[in-house]
Amino acid sequence: MRVAIDAMGGDFGPSLVVPASVKALNEEASHLLFVGQRSEVIKHLDALESADRARCEFIEAPDIVEMSEHAATSVRKKPRSSMAIGLKLVEDGQADGFVSAGHSGAVMTGALAIIGRVPGVERPALVTVLPTLRGRSMLLDLGATTDPRPHYLVQYAIMAVTYSRLVMGVANPRVGLLSNGEERTKGNQLVQEVLPLLEAVPGMNFIGNVEAKELLRGDIEIFVTDGFTGNVALKSMEGAVSVLTDILREEVTRTPFRKALALLMRPALRQVRTRLDYEEIGGAPLLGVNGSVIVAHGRSRERAIANAVRVAARTAAQEIPAEIERAIRSASVAPSPPASSAGLPHA
Amino acid sequence: MRVAIDAMGGDFGPSLVVPASVKALNEEASHLLFVGQRSEVIKHLDALESADRARCEFIEAPDIVEMSEHAATSVRKKPRSSMAIGLKLVEDGQADGFVSAGHSGAVMTGALAIIGRVPGVERPALVTVLPTLRGRSMLLDLGATTDPRPHYLVQYAIMAVTYSRLVMGVANPRVGLLSNGEERTKGNQLVQEVLPLLEAVPGMNFIGNVEAKELLRGDIEIFVTDGFTGNVALKSMEGAVSVLTDILREEVTRTPFRKALALLMRPALRQVRTRLDYEEIGGAPLLGVNGSVIVAHGRSRERAIANAVRVAARTAAQEIPAEIERAIRSASVAPSPPASSAGLPHA
Repeated sequence: MRVAIDAMGGDFGPSLVVPASVKALNEEASHLLFVGQRSEVIKHLDALESADRARCEFIEAPDIVEMSEHAATSVRKKPRSSMAIGLKLVEDGQADGFVSAGHSGAVMTGALAIIGRVPGVERPALVTVLPTLRGRSMLLDLGATTDPRPHYLVQYAIMAVTYSRLVMGVANPRVGLLSNGEERTKGNQLVQEVLPLLEAVPGMNFIGNVEAKELLRGDIEIFVTDGFTGNVALKSMEGAVSVLTDILREEVTRTPFRKALALLMRPALRQVRTRLDYEEIGGAPLLGVNGSVIVAHGRSRERAIANAVRVAARTAAQEIPAEIERAIRSASVAPSPPASSAGLPHA
Repeated sequence: MRVAIDAMGGDFGPSLVVPASVKALNEEASHLLFVGQRSEVIKHLDALESADRARCEFIEAPDIVEMSEHAATSVRKKPRSSMAIGLKLVEDGQADGFVSAGHSGAVMTGALAIIGRVPGVERPALVTVLPTLRGRSMLLDLGATTDPRPHYLVQYAIMAVTYSRLVMGVANPRVGLLSNGEERTKGNQLVQEVLPLLEAVPGMNFIGNVEAKELLRGDIEIFVTDGFTGNVALKSMEGAVSVLTDILREEVTRTPFRKALALLMRPALRQVRTRLDYEEIGGAPLLGVNGSVIVAHGRSRERAIANAVRVAARTAAQEIPAEIERAIRSASVAPSPPASSAGLPHA
């Protein structure tokens, strides 16, 4: 598989993205296409060992989509950006997948415009794969569409079940609808409209409304929500883990005696960290786009970027878009009138 | 101050609520009025020491509002419930404040119907006070209104600033609008409509869109959001802290050597727990109701209930409703047409 990479995306730019992506080269991710500004990218490619260099290609893109740009228009306004050109490589069949650590909303809107949707899918969804007490869970949408219509969430669930079965190896994943309480009467207007729609999907292991405290428990494999709420839930958890870690560090180093204990305890604390480390997973699939498009966190460091590249290759190899098309069709979730009438998503 | 208590609310009922509330008796919370079923409550009152018993009163309420009932109608349908009667005591001036660990949506709707709003306030908001790296922060709304109109959030901010100044002692609290990114272009439709409204409030220390990872950092004192998102954010954090604690416990007791270390490390770990303990705070004010109404978490144990009772007494003593009325008036946030046309909130 040939994976195109937005070399300009992410907080650290090509100096991190190029060497990190190269670490992902394997049988599945056999070739990499780095898209970006010549002056920024080429020097990092030329610094590679020759065996790696031979499997990498440079594609010029003079423009950059900035994080502050409006998701709905940025890629359209910048057809020569690394994001637009990378997506075009997938659409033209020159690449099998695309990875970007740039503006996630822009990747989504750009992918929608350039690659298009899987037939039958109304709106792609951005997923995150979470580490849990046992196994992993998927949370979607993560911000691709901040104000979705009710039946979009039904399609999100079907797409996630497909991905969970084929990529994560979970035979019959449990699906929950994120809400402010488990009772049927809970939820905002969107949740109250989505609940009966999800209950009506044949063959889905849908367990109803679930609370956000379940996200990392590992009892539910798929959490469906709108992109705004999903983003807030994810960042709430990231923030809580980060603050708890800081407080822990402060307390276990408060006295010399505690410092000595903490040193001896280090292997255990490192294991805690590894078990909750998003870096170990890295890369969120944009499900519903008619190609393999993986969005990495803006703050992604080496391991997260490398994992995102591997996930892009695997998603392509498993032909996830075609599988999603089949799943949506067999669930016969009636598509709405032409998507063009739905307007562009909010950032 | 005389505080009425929903003796039937919460996961543990009167056997916990009665003795826990009595622990809160002090100069400010001088008298308690326990509202509930005679057969369930009176035995716990009669078990009290005589000095405490003399400051407690029993008020009969044969009905209970269940957690599964619809928030919008439950209190109205059950005028003889502990929740309805407790709120009535405040409205009639027989109590200065009310505490319930029952269905938070029902408390909100009931308080709205029985006590009514502070003049000028359109919709009350349920607050939680969060422990942070340094100091405390407030997050609102926590589920009182799951689908608010944009200007409700402006009033939430004004109410929280008032409470923060008078009860929490923060002179000029920073206010952030919870969003899926800091950029102005981020946010769902609600956030994009609220941002310019908050920017226009004179004298408010508004810092714009903020991400959920800031909630426990302590750099921002007030986070404003809709009730659905606030609830999801809070439970995401609670879940993450709980799972991280579980993983930590597993790892530090994996071997006999680690167990020994963990024993020596116990005081440090206990301090971590205390610093992040919601029990230390307990009780969320329902701001905007024309009386002191405090909602405790359904899972509240002794310390959280006692703190909620103290907060109810203090909120009454500080005359928070009157202060909010002044703040809303001087900010001249124009009220919409009569609230009756706005319909009842979603659960």
